[in-house]
Amino acid sequence: MTREELIDQIKEKRTFLCVGLDTDLQKIPKHLLDCDDPVFEFNKVIIDATKDLCVAYKPNIAFYEMLGPKGWESLKKTIEYIPSNIFTIADAKRGDIGNTSGYYANTFFNTYDFDAVTIAPYMGSDSVTPFLAHTNKWAIVLAMTSNVGGLDFQFQKDQQGERLFEKVIKKSMEWGNDRNTMLVVGATRADLIDDVRKIAPDTFLLVPGVGAQGGSLEDVVHAGMNKDCGLLVNSSRGIIYASDQEDFGQVAREKALGLQKQMELHLANSGVIH
Amino acid sequence: MTREELIDQIKEKRTFLCVGLDTDLQKIPKHLLDCDDPVFEFNKVIIDATKDLCVAYKPNIAFYEMLGPKGWESLKKTIEYIPSNIFTIADAKRGDIGNTSGYYANTFFNTYDFDAVTIAPYMGSDSVTPFLAHTNKWAIVLAMTSNVGGLDFQFQKDQQGERLFEKVIKKSMEWGNDRNTMLVVGATRADLIDDVRKIAPDTFLLVPGVGAQGGSLEDVVHAGMNKDCGLLVNSSRGIIYASDQEDFGQVAREKALGLQKQMELHLANSGVIH
Repeated sequence: MTREELIDQIKEKRTFLCVGLDTDLQKIPKHLLDCDDPVFEFNKVIIDATKDLCVAYKPNIAFYEMLGPKGWESLKKTIEYIPSNIFTIADAKRGDIGNTSGYYANTFFNTYDFDAVTIAPYMGSDSVTPFLAHTNKWAIVLAMTSNVGGLDFQFQKDQQGERLFEKVIKKSMEWGNDRNTMLVVGATRADLIDDVRKIAPDTFLLVPGVGAQGGSLEDVVHAGMNKDCGLLVNSSRGIIYASDQEDFGQVAREKALGLQKQMELHLANSGVIH
Repeated sequence: MTREELIDQIKEKRTFLCVGLDTDLQKIPKHLLDCDDPVFEFNKVIIDATKDLCVAYKPNIAFYEMLGPKGWESLKKTIEYIPSNIFTIADAKRGDIGNTSGYYANTFFNTYDFDAVTIAPYMGSDSVTPFLAHTNKWAIVLAMTSNVGGLDFQFQKDQQGERLFEKVIKKSMEWGNDRNTMLVVGATRADLIDDVRKIAPDTFLLVPGVGAQGGSLEDVVHAGMNKDCGLLVNSSRGIIYASDQEDFGQVAREKALGLQKQMELHLANSGVIH
């Protein structure tokens, strides 16, 4: 998907919601466990209930990988089921050296036809650039994450006072550009999104951590929204596990609708839509 | 596998070779492509040919993942085929936050029964500690990698002059210990293994990059070997693709034997074996 197509979807649907498909057999409604493929059945209901309220779906690959080959079958069916005008993100946090990173890119862009993959930058350019060789596909680089461990290294200052996450952002923007690269920026540190925007004013940010993890949508929008929106805000648990009963699709829809309505207001207030 | 068991294997087999099972349909002998599972058939021959000459096997997961669910079947068969007294490393370079990292640990330690997983440290403690909760299993943290992109961030100095890879090593040794944590250290920077050993004198180092990637076994041993050996040196292409003909198993054995003989000398010279 191109940047223009993504922005068009945001304006048309009046939302920048990304729904995290972190589908866990321990947490989905019990009645689904009798199905042949409970993970896919669950995802299907969630997608049907939310596809007009979001612009992206983001399965975290750990949840599928843990189930062995069957989990990858569920993932493939899920990706094929998502309407093609919705942006798809493999939250895989992969990262390896050149040719091997190329294989990971191949996996998610060709074997599974995702639009984007999240990437860990520790090994530098070799980890990221192979993903940029695919037309209309995206690398989403981990920059500043919202977890406690994010403090261990990402905020380390170099001798010029530059923090590691700032260096990662600058390098990412040298390797790629705003049309093939996004950044993961945690919502629980919305005060720092200002700093990110100083380096990458136009880049799309994938922001997890709103809702269950404690981040505020308003703070994120205030610091991070630009003229093209420039944000994909993810919610997983707060939507998909809002009910563990047979009504889980309906309740997920209500939660997603609540977020879409807030997002529509923010888009209008910021002049992205009219 | 415990540290003692690993050291016993090294002394008994007089080798610290790790064979990288980076099995690529584009590179394996053509006659195998008619098999039902060419990847597993290839691995089986390589394992039969080298299992008395190495102490570890390391499949890079990218090669299997790219093949979709079938690749994961090949991986599972491969892991089950490896004799239980050989250390197995999932070179997956995973890393996520707490509960999700726990799922990755579950994948490789339970779904596939590996002894160890390589881990990307960018997200900090949350990415590593869930792997340490499994008894007799190992986290192998990327510290200083031998690829060009390793220079992008790993050598960044903080305001006290400490480089990022040194910080990663110190933190890793706070989270874990020499009985459940190893470090990835690239062989093409053998001069820096000295610096690693100052911080982590007893820790096992997984060293890729010897052979095809240009590192010297002698330099690595000189800088990195300790009284328990403390090294697993990986070779992939140099062994498994030494021939692309029907004799590939025999030729792989000759290459592995050449390395084992060199390693035996180094182990004897360093007093690890007599």
